[in-house]
Amino acid sequence: MTDTPTTLFLAGTGTALPGPPVDNTSLGKLFGISEEWIDLFVGTRTRHFCWDLGTGTLTHSLADLCAEAAGRALDTSGLAPADMDFLVLTTATPDTLLPTTATVVADRLGLSHLPVYQLQAGCSGAVQALDVARALLAAGHRAGLVVGGDVTDRFLDAQRDPVSLPTEELVNYVLFGDGAGAAVVTAEPAGDAVAVRGLLHRFTGRGRAPGQIVDWQGTARQDHTRRMLFEDYKAIEENVPLMAAEIFRELLGTAGWTREDVDYLLPPQLSARMTARITEHLGVPELTEISCVAETGNTGNALPLIQLDRLAAAMDEGERALAVVVESSKWIRAGLALERLAETDTAR
Amino acid sequence: MTDTPTTLFLAGTGTALPGPPVDNTSLGKLFGISEEWIDLFVGTRTRHFCWDLGTGTLTHSLADLCAEAAGRALDTSGLAPADMDFLVLTTATPDTLLPTTATVVADRLGLSHLPVYQLQAGCSGAVQALDVARALLAAGHRAGLVVGGDVTDRFLDAQRDPVSLPTEELVNYVLFGDGAGAAVVTAEPAGDAVAVRGLLHRFTGRGRAPGQIVDWQGTARQDHTRRMLFEDYKAIEENVPLMAAEIFRELLGTAGWTREDVDYLLPPQLSARMTARITEHLGVPELTEISCVAETGNTGNALPLIQLDRLAAAMDEGERALAVVVESSKWIRAGLALERLAETDTAR
Repeated sequence: MTDTPTTLFLAGTGTALPGPPVDNTSLGKLFGISEEWIDLFVGTRTRHFCWDLGTGTLTHSLADLCAEAAGRALDTSGLAPADMDFLVLTTATPDTLLPTTATVVADRLGLSHLPVYQLQAGCSGAVQALDVARALLAAGHRAGLVVGGDVTDRFLDAQRDPVSLPTEELVNYVLFGDGAGAAVVTAEPAGDAVAVRGLLHRFTGRGRAPGQIVDWQGTARQDHTRRMLFEDYKAIEENVPLMAAEIFRELLGTAGWTREDVDYLLPPQLSARMTARITEHLGVPELTEISCVAETGNTGNALPLIQLDRLAAAMDEGERALAVVVESSKWIRAGLALERLAETDTAR
Repeated sequence: MTDTPTTLFLAGTGTALPGPPVDNTSLGKLFGISEEWIDLFVGTRTRHFCWDLGTGTLTHSLADLCAEAAGRALDTSGLAPADMDFLVLTTATPDTLLPTTATVVADRLGLSHLPVYQLQAGCSGAVQALDVARALLAAGHRAGLVVGGDVTDRFLDAQRDPVSLPTEELVNYVLFGDGAGAAVVTAEPAGDAVAVRGLLHRFTGRGRAPGQIVDWQGTARQDHTRRMLFEDYKAIEENVPLMAAEIFRELLGTAGWTREDVDYLLPPQLSARMTARITEHLGVPELTEISCVAETGNTGNALPLIQLDRLAAAMDEGERALAVVVESSKWIRAGLALERLAETDTAR
């Protein structure tokens, strides 16, 4: 396989989270889960849902969240919708299979006559979308939008009797959250953009059972015995810390950096507990950690983009970061090596 | 928007259709539809299903079909799985939301340590996947697999009482079929590959209602009043012939060809009747038409790749073709300008 070393630049980033944060007290009360249990096994303190916790009424669609995050990324970039040459949206939970949420978001943003792509992906989707964006920029495009998000409303049910829920299903209620993140990407540096100096995106699941399954139903073959949502937490716990360490090392190599060159770590965000385990295994306590999962829950395709939004706010010129991403669905390794440009770098 | 004029080459193509062809007599008998009605309004003579017509038992998954088509494309290309730098799969109807069918197909083909992408798309998916492949090749990759397919089993139900089906739902049974198509694409020409000289992929649905909706359900919010599958046939009939004519003209411009330079036409394949209406509107009777919808039904993301497979078998060196593709979900214009290389072109 050849390398694709093109740099791309993050000219602006944005985040969208629906409604107020839902804390463990509210969630615990509704689903009969003890706060202590959530804290001990998950560690996530709050999350946001696109449905009202009391009534179950939908408050936001994925398109709502993605358009909001994209609008913020455009605002911080200083670029206009008309400057966008493409849009890449990534999600595991589209509003409909067709039309794609990507085209609905393009419509909302007033975009037209440009290519619009939607990736189906899990936790690595944000890096996959940046990977596609990098290729599109290498092919001659100048700027585009990368958007990622997920919503839980098809799998979590505020009206469901908690007594009927097995533990592995209750976990989903405390683990996941809704949200979207976005980035405006450019082929040329501008201002104090964050440069993507290295990007890793690699399927490594040959011969391995999936660590996560998310199924869907149409109108026919409704089968209530089907396991619609499944996480192999044992396999995830065993594999993700090791994979994260390998990704960390590989990203250093790709960027040509040593450990001492790096200032920030964006670790995988399955849950606050899992993130803590991974960073402990990585053994780089000197790095400033950029995590959001304790406040947002696991927002899937949004997460690395929300971390990038927080990184962009924190990073000083010349500082460097590594983002480590693992998708356990079929064991995808992904990651980013990032560097904040000095204003003067623009001249290069 | 900048142009991305990179050429890519189709080194091999393949098709996979499940089971025996299902004719209108069998289908009409099962669902109480008259053969005359199918012939008059749809014109499709046969289609293939990934489920047994008598029992409803599933016989093939999307991954089965895609792996089979990809294997055939690899065989005709003379390249090995290990030569592939990436895989792009496109579908509207993935086997599961996660893991993606793309990663399952990569596993089946023995691929590993390469980027694997899955696009969510409708009728334009095959062109979108070739568009992503073109960018990946421009970014430095040398060869990859493009696969497209769809399966109908979540929306069509062999066990369903036809009396309960409204006409617009019965239409889906006679319109759609299951299948997959694939192409091995390369950055450099080899042998008598088919060159993609122009590629159009453009969202034009700003402010327009979708012409097609395909919805999905998870475990929560099962809502049986929801319209899961909807085609606005009136809007499609009004818009698609006009859009097809505009795409045809634009592709000529992109490739720098005149109408007289073209030998083959690959028209949109919604149904045999619709294809006939479109080609009539295009008014290019001198072109050899490459259509498959009358035999395969509308196989969605597979269709343009199946047409390309048939074109590759028909085309002589130096001959040229235009493929016109319209996705009515949110009005995406797409198309390809194609040319069969002479063996000697390889030296260029």
